[in-house]
Amino acid sequence: MTAKLTAAMVVMDGGGDRPVPELGGLTPLQAAKTPNFDRLASQGQSGLMHVISPGVTPGSDTAHLALFGYDPVSTYPGRGPLEALGAGLQSRPGDVAFRANFATMNPDFTVIDRRAGREFTSEEGAALQKALDGLDIDGVKVHFVHTVEHRGALVLEGKGLSEKITDVDPHEDGKKILQAEPLVPEARKTADVVNRLIRLSYERLRGLDVNKARQKRGIAPANVLLLRGPGQHREVATLKERFGIRCAVLAGGALYIGTAKYVGMDHVKVQGQTGTIDTNFDGIADKAIECIEGGYDYVFIHIKATDNASHDHNVKQKILAIERTDKMVGRILDKVRDRVVIAVTADHTTPVTVGEHTCDPVPIVIWAPFLRPDSSKRFTEIDAARGALHTIRGMDVLPTLLGYAGKTEKFGS
Amino acid sequence: MTAKLTAAMVVMDGGGDRPVPELGGLTPLQAAKTPNFDRLASQGQSGLMHVISPGVTPGSDTAHLALFGYDPVSTYPGRGPLEALGAGLQSRPGDVAFRANFATMNPDFTVIDRRAGREFTSEEGAALQKALDGLDIDGVKVHFVHTVEHRGALVLEGKGLSEKITDVDPHEDGKKILQAEPLVPEARKTADVVNRLIRLSYERLRGLDVNKARQKRGIAPANVLLLRGPGQHREVATLKERFGIRCAVLAGGALYIGTAKYVGMDHVKVQGQTGTIDTNFDGIADKAIECIEGGYDYVFIHIKATDNASHDHNVKQKILAIERTDKMVGRILDKVRDRVVIAVTADHTTPVTVGEHTCDPVPIVIWAPFLRPDSSKRFTEIDAARGALHTIRGMDVLPTLLGYAGKTEKFGS
Repeated sequence: MTAKLTAAMVVMDGGGDRPVPELGGLTPLQAAKTPNFDRLASQGQSGLMHVISPGVTPGSDTAHLALFGYDPVSTYPGRGPLEALGAGLQSRPGDVAFRANFATMNPDFTVIDRRAGREFTSEEGAALQKALDGLDIDGVKVHFVHTVEHRGALVLEGKGLSEKITDVDPHEDGKKILQAEPLVPEARKTADVVNRLIRLSYERLRGLDVNKARQKRGIAPANVLLLRGPGQHREVATLKERFGIRCAVLAGGALYIGTAKYVGMDHVKVQGQTGTIDTNFDGIADKAIECIEGGYDYVFIHIKATDNASHDHNVKQKILAIERTDKMVGRILDKVRDRVVIAVTADHTTPVTVGEHTCDPVPIVIWAPFLRPDSSKRFTEIDAARGALHTIRGMDVLPTLLGYAGKTEKFGS
Repeated sequence: MTAKLTAAMVVMDGGGDRPVPELGGLTPLQAAKTPNFDRLASQGQSGLMHVISPGVTPGSDTAHLALFGYDPVSTYPGRGPLEALGAGLQSRPGDVAFRANFATMNPDFTVIDRRAGREFTSEEGAALQKALDGLDIDGVKVHFVHTVEHRGALVLEGKGLSEKITDVDPHEDGKKILQAEPLVPEARKTADVVNRLIRLSYERLRGLDVNKARQKRGIAPANVLLLRGPGQHREVATLKERFGIRCAVLAGGALYIGTAKYVGMDHVKVQGQTGTIDTNFDGIADKAIECIEGGYDYVFIHIKATDNASHDHNVKQKILAIERTDKMVGRILDKVRDRVVIAVTADHTTPVTVGEHTCDPVPIVIWAPFLRPDSSKRFTEIDAARGALHTIRGMDVLPTLLGYAGKTEKFGS
């Protein structure tokens, strides 16, 4: 009988890369000093992972669904519901959820600043959020929450809603806000609600004291709410329903938290966990240890700094983010080495030379005290290709960890 | 932002092989001098490809569907429609198409020569084709076209047709032509049409001048048309519909051209491109360069000579065909190295020791200027097994090339 272990997964966002000329053709993982990752690679099993499937460039949301053990093709609800869940809203089957953001427009609906100056204090956000409170349009309840900067999430709760509508956000300053149109006849009502909601947001926001104060300070007023990324929450079986497991997510970004909640995971807060290079690595490690010792069956740790560095074409910062994550993993293993099956990987490749997600598979290493070793000695894109996992799909990783952790039942008898 | 590149695929038909005793246990790829392939292998990623799936011996038609990015299990329409498209006929959903060939029979329907002497001038072919022109059986229009030798293709156009009928071709000289029988009740009409068509072909062909002249010269007359390989064109989304891409096929054989047309590719003609060892390799390379420079998103090059050599158990000829293809690839890369993501592979294994298709996976190498290298240095069945692509399915290759070429959208956000 296998001892019951916790399945732990550490994901460096955009961690995969390509050869970088300024590193003499090495990848950031090859150039980084990663003694802890390399110990996992030496003792464990490495491979390359197609997070979704060969040739498919993963989005952040679909990638995480796969890493949580779900087929994104059949379970992806669109970005809106995941953002909404991450922002602390409820989103249930039937609801339609959106990413929302404050913008500045002229009375003729021409957008002057899609981000309404971008900077918002949490007091301003709270005041703006309050002004939109309690909206009810034709029996459809509107739930909005402000998150950070000009951003927020919005859920429409009611009957007969559909996410199949066109965009209202013109995605460019100087253009008029668009009319939402139904893409299917059943979406007529939702399109109407959204169009009225945009107008109502203008009516409620434009005269607010907070906006007068912003204008006095020379900052763009937040006088309208724009919506994008509509999606409808699907009926998905939670991880608890599928495997009978308790799952924790340690992440700084709303999207990752929301995607985890969508499949029934608990968000475990870590003081100082952010999406930046200065996130509280030690605090994350200590909280992960607590989750593992506290009986969570699956603990997922998301580190965003690698991806930010990639988008900024900042090689040094990416290497630093990798090295800090390596140290964090070392801190976890020092305490609970004998209690975990752990995977270290990435949710997609974001080459620093490209600055965007690409379809290249990502390296993965899986370690448990009892695993057969392979010939891979370092955790890099190049070494992982020689590992015993060969090529693995993203959605197969969690079942693999749970299998090794003794959390799943034999199939058949 | 990834530069937009063209996805190029070079397929050596039957190019995969097994160890050959007369080569001291080497495969033809190992014995051949292939500096260009080997440069791709050294700088790119190799692997083994199950063109359809493990253990399945691919046909030429199903293999190409997979290489064009389609699941042959759900999209293969049978051989007939693909041959018909390749022969220049129209084949649309609802039609039933066949491979057709002239044969010689006695008045009692005993086949004397299934190939009617095999040799036909194009004038003879045209005269025979004309004699079968305009046939209409019970409202079903018959379209026949002669291609080469005794061969042709035939399409039945009409309502309520089905491909589910038994064969009329006895597949052996000295046996009687068979009655087509319906395999399902709905195929009764089609079976009747086919049976009447066979008789009608005899009535129209037997007395022709061209047959009298053949008999005078001691050559078997083409007095009946045999049909085989019935298939019904399916509703498949074209590559343009699926990916928004323009695709070109450079091939000498009707089947490859027809399969490419079935998925919406353009056949780009090359002067002197044939299925033989003397095909115009330089001309193919130059036309491929033209297609790449001209903005095609996917360019597929088919080389048949490797397969012919394999079927003839001709090791030297196979090595020569490989070396000429290698040179052709070098000529292409000399001109458009910075504009392509290229794969070199085979559609199936045809060992020269066997002379028939087998289920062995084939080697594949994928190269792009930015790809992570692996430890494979040569393009052979043995070296490819060490490559970073590990094992890949045929239908995953095109999406992979398109992903690297920047032709596909991110899935999710």
